[in-house]
Amino acid sequence: MMLLGRGLDARDNQTRQMQDAVSNVEKHFGELCQIFAGYVRKTARLRDKADLLVNEIYAYAATETPNLKVGLKNFADEFSRLQDYRQAEVDRLEAKVVEPLKCYGTIVKLKRDDLRATLTAKSREAKQLSQLEKTRQRNPSDLHVIAENELHRASLDATRTTRHLEETIDNFEKQKIRDIKNIFSEFITIEMLFHGKALEIYTAAYQNIQNIDENEDLEISRRMLRKDEEEDEEEDEDDEEDDEEDEFDATKEAFTRFR
Amino acid sequence: MMLLGRGLDARDNQTRQMQDAVSNVEKHFGELCQIFAGYVRKTARLRDKADLLVNEIYAYAATETPNLKVGLKNFADEFSRLQDYRQAEVDRLEAKVVEPLKCYGTIVKLKRDDLRATLTAKSREAKQLSQLEKTRQRNPSDLHVIAENELHRASLDATRTTRHLEETIDNFEKQKIRDIKNIFSEFITIEMLFHGKALEIYTAAYQNIQNIDENEDLEISRRMLRKDEEEDEEEDEDDEEDDEEDEFDATKEAFTRFR
Repeated sequence: MMLLGRGLDARDNQTRQMQDAVSNVEKHFGELCQIFAGYVRKTARLRDKADLLVNEIYAYAATETPNLKVGLKNFADEFSRLQDYRQAEVDRLEAKVVEPLKCYGTIVKLKRDDLRATLTAKSREAKQLSQLEKTRQRNPSDLHVIAENELHRASLDATRTTRHLEETIDNFEKQKIRDIKNIFSEFITIEMLFHGKALEIYTAAYQNIQNIDENEDLEISRRMLRKDEEEDEEEDEDDEEDDEEDEFDATKEAFTRFR
Repeated sequence: MMLLGRGLDARDNQTRQMQDAVSNVEKHFGELCQIFAGYVRKTARLRDKADLLVNEIYAYAATETPNLKVGLKNFADEFSRLQDYRQAEVDRLEAKVVEPLKCYGTIVKLKRDDLRATLTAKSREAKQLSQLEKTRQRNPSDLHVIAENELHRASLDATRTTRHLEETIDNFEKQKIRDIKNIFSEFITIEMLFHGKALEIYTAAYQNIQNIDENEDLEISRRMLRKDEEEDEEEDEDDEEDDEEDEFDATKEAFTRFR
């Protein structure tokens, strides 16, 4: 009887241990889910800033001399393309990392229910087994045969339930390790895809910047200043009243000539 | 005289055009500076989230079976190393992109002062030239020689100032294009350095996750559960009063066994 009592204690310890293990996974997967979601959000914020940068570079390029204009515009095109890949990174991380971690909450809950049901059955059977043992000891004669049969059946049930419990625990552990490997592998793959694209795109973007011919642009802006002076000097028959309009035109021209 | 008058107008147009160009650069470099600073800030926030992730992975790994524990810990080590490179990215972008753009405000201000001084001189000289021309026309006889000399000197001054103005504009344009090429090249180089490191580190990190031997861990957790049961069944001489302490120990053990 002492032995059976200790057996029940051992099962209680196992139960607690398993429930602690499930709670532990529930807790840490929850934390991981939240932090990964934060990581994805910050990546999306970085993309937002990069989009602003793209727009500002386009706006500035439009006011510049031809070579600088083209160089900056091409850089902005490439940088904008990279932000599309960053958006894909965000979407993929959401779908392949955050979502599966979120789903884990439900999986863990179901596993815990399954585990609890099995443990309840196991405990009930163990008590039944202990009860029959007592009955047999108290009535060694008349109830012997019936008790012996019941004891045998109860023992078989307890063994089957123990095996089911072990399978439940096993499946939980197996799925957990597989899911972790899966989620982290997805994370790494998605990040690598983005970093690879970034290297490829920046390589092209670097050439766009390096190819800006500063001497040609300087020559162009020199010619423009001189041409402006010559043009104005040729128009010497204009009335003084036109001056104000001229001033407006010149200002407008300065802003629009490189667009 | 009409020709000189138009010349002055032309110069005024040039002046406005140049001042517009300087203001334009001032404006856009200011905007670029702010947005790049935002981009760097968001990158730093992403690193913060990644740091949280590193800590949480360490915390979770400490509660797991040996293979999963080592795999996750190694992944966290690599991922943490990547965050050091992200910090380097942040520091470099701050020093080589944001700071130079910030300094540009001062450079543009100095250039504008230089330009204004030159333009003032040029305008003053042009008026002097026009004045002398008038004087010569009004007094063609007695003041002829003096006026002619003064006219010649004033004309030389005006030419010299024009050349200085052209040089000032030229230097401004030259420095601007060089600085843009420099700043954007630095940006791309810094980003590429980070993305390259990321690819390298994730490649190693991927192996850490793939190498997690799930079967060995499952075997270990099975052995632990069985050993627990056997141990408890052997300790059958313990008093019932010890039960409460046993429960506490079992809970503690469940939390600490994989650490």
